[in-house]
Amino acid sequence: MQENPPEVLVSEVGPRDGLQSVKAVMPTADKFRWIAALYAAGVREIEVASFVPAKLLPQMADAAAVVRHALTLPGLTVMALVPNVRGAQAALEAGVHKITIPVSASEAHSLANVRKTREQMVEEVRAIVALRNEIAPQVKVEAGLSTAFGCTLQGQVAEDDVVWLAGQVIAAGADESGLSDTTGMANPAQVRRLFQRVRAEIGERTGAAHMHNTRGLGLANCLAAYDVGVRTFDSSLGGLGGCPYAPGASGNVVTEDLVFMFEAMGVCTGVDIDKLLAAREPLRAGLPGEPVYGMLPEAGLPKGWSVA
Amino acid sequence: MQENPPEVLVSEVGPRDGLQSVKAVMPTADKFRWIAALYAAGVREIEVASFVPAKLLPQMADAAAVVRHALTLPGLTVMALVPNVRGAQAALEAGVHKITIPVSASEAHSLANVRKTREQMVEEVRAIVALRNEIAPQVKVEAGLSTAFGCTLQGQVAEDDVVWLAGQVIAAGADESGLSDTTGMANPAQVRRLFQRVRAEIGERTGAAHMHNTRGLGLANCLAAYDVGVRTFDSSLGGLGGCPYAPGASGNVVTEDLVFMFEAMGVCTGVDIDKLLAAREPLRAGLPGEPVYGMLPEAGLPKGWSVA
Repeated sequence: MQENPPEVLVSEVGPRDGLQSVKAVMPTADKFRWIAALYAAGVREIEVASFVPAKLLPQMADAAAVVRHALTLPGLTVMALVPNVRGAQAALEAGVHKITIPVSASEAHSLANVRKTREQMVEEVRAIVALRNEIAPQVKVEAGLSTAFGCTLQGQVAEDDVVWLAGQVIAAGADESGLSDTTGMANPAQVRRLFQRVRAEIGERTGAAHMHNTRGLGLANCLAAYDVGVRTFDSSLGGLGGCPYAPGASGNVVTEDLVFMFEAMGVCTGVDIDKLLAAREPLRAGLPGEPVYGMLPEAGLPKGWSVA
Repeated sequence: MQENPPEVLVSEVGPRDGLQSVKAVMPTADKFRWIAALYAAGVREIEVASFVPAKLLPQMADAAAVVRHALTLPGLTVMALVPNVRGAQAALEAGVHKITIPVSASEAHSLANVRKTREQMVEEVRAIVALRNEIAPQVKVEAGLSTAFGCTLQGQVAEDDVVWLAGQVIAAGADESGLSDTTGMANPAQVRRLFQRVRAEIGERTGAAHMHNTRGLGLANCLAAYDVGVRTFDSSLGGLGGCPYAPGASGNVVTEDLVFMFEAMGVCTGVDIDKLLAAREPLRAGLPGEPVYGMLPEAGLPKGWSVA
């Protein structure tokens, strides 16, 4: 483990975003093993499940059990995705530390994904915050603005819309709002511009950069976000996952490569790379035959590697 | 074709760096087709060959013929790599516009690669410049500092050594000196720091960033170099190639992904992406069975794509 305090927070989304994107269902015991291995590597925030009807996403049917297991790991922030109040209720009852609500910046994606307009989703955020205030006021609520950098359905998404929506979800009571490149359309100039504009709107409530590597720009976009002050980065071990509702989109940023980039730069993540690589084993074991990505895992650490 | 003048120069190295890294020999006629397709896409600098003994690199036995063909393409800067005076003589006689000399920043790599110390390579640069002055004074001479960011043989390479060597090759008469991440060990913080230091030493004679994607950081490193003023970037169509003398290293930055990154950022490259993708066909045809990489080619251009 590092001696230095982490300067960036790597928020692992594989057990939620990754697992709900593949057809196979990872057995609950394998999820436990995988999450424990990520924790052992020093990962301190994990999106472990989404609370959605098991009929829609059988991969997430064991969400409450996975949350309860993750809560046994000291110092881990246990996150879950919830699309609505019903999901939030279940997540809060399971005891999560943080919930994240996807809110599409693209109207077309919002309607296709949750059959709600963006304004209706802002109202959903408001209702979830009210529920949180009532039954679990210590729980953090994040609104993640999906398709913030472009949409496979409607094409470009106006930056003004994203900035407006960030203001709306914070006004509705969300503790923070991040930006998601759901469709792999972001570029570094846009990432810098948009995060700066959102920060000007909502200040320190600006949340995570959730980047995809669809067109190879994932790490460059994370670097761009880091350059303008973002300090929380979503990624997925082995690059598992993407958004099943955005046709043609795939490929979360690979946690292994992201951690390597920051550590090589001398930016402490608190994550041990060798142990992180070891966490690929339970992922493979729990999802036999599923492709697992990553450039660092293929090449290995450089000769003479030492954290700067 | 773009109306705007290019803001960055994408220097294609595939026909040299790529082809000399694979075992198969691309037939000369296929090299012509591939180079013509790159040119048709708007690429205006191509490293078309290296002038080395055909016994060592049979892939490059047709170097003079390839140069002569490339010289028929108006406005194209025709480059060749030369390791020594003998190679420079052949390249200059063939009529190249620019020669590039690899000079290792790592003493261990220099000795392994060309059996010369770094000081001896600086003398080779001096002798090549003298020859150039005598027989073809209009030709540009670049010294590319290989292993500038780390070495698979000796591990870390001191930044002071790189800055010193850049000063030495310029003092020996090279027109410019770039930095090569031969071994895929560079990180964005190091790229910014080292290019800034080299620029402080040799000013506008600072040359290209030659990055590898060995550990997935290729584009992030190009972005970092761009941020500190670098405007020439080496890359290889389909990510072909690497350095055959650096064990475990592989993977030039993919031209398609690099051009996409810059064009998406609104930085004009002068390259037409659709035509660039079409240039993969003669590459595949000339090297059957060889893997060809690239994220953008897999994902395609985003919906609603237009140059910013």
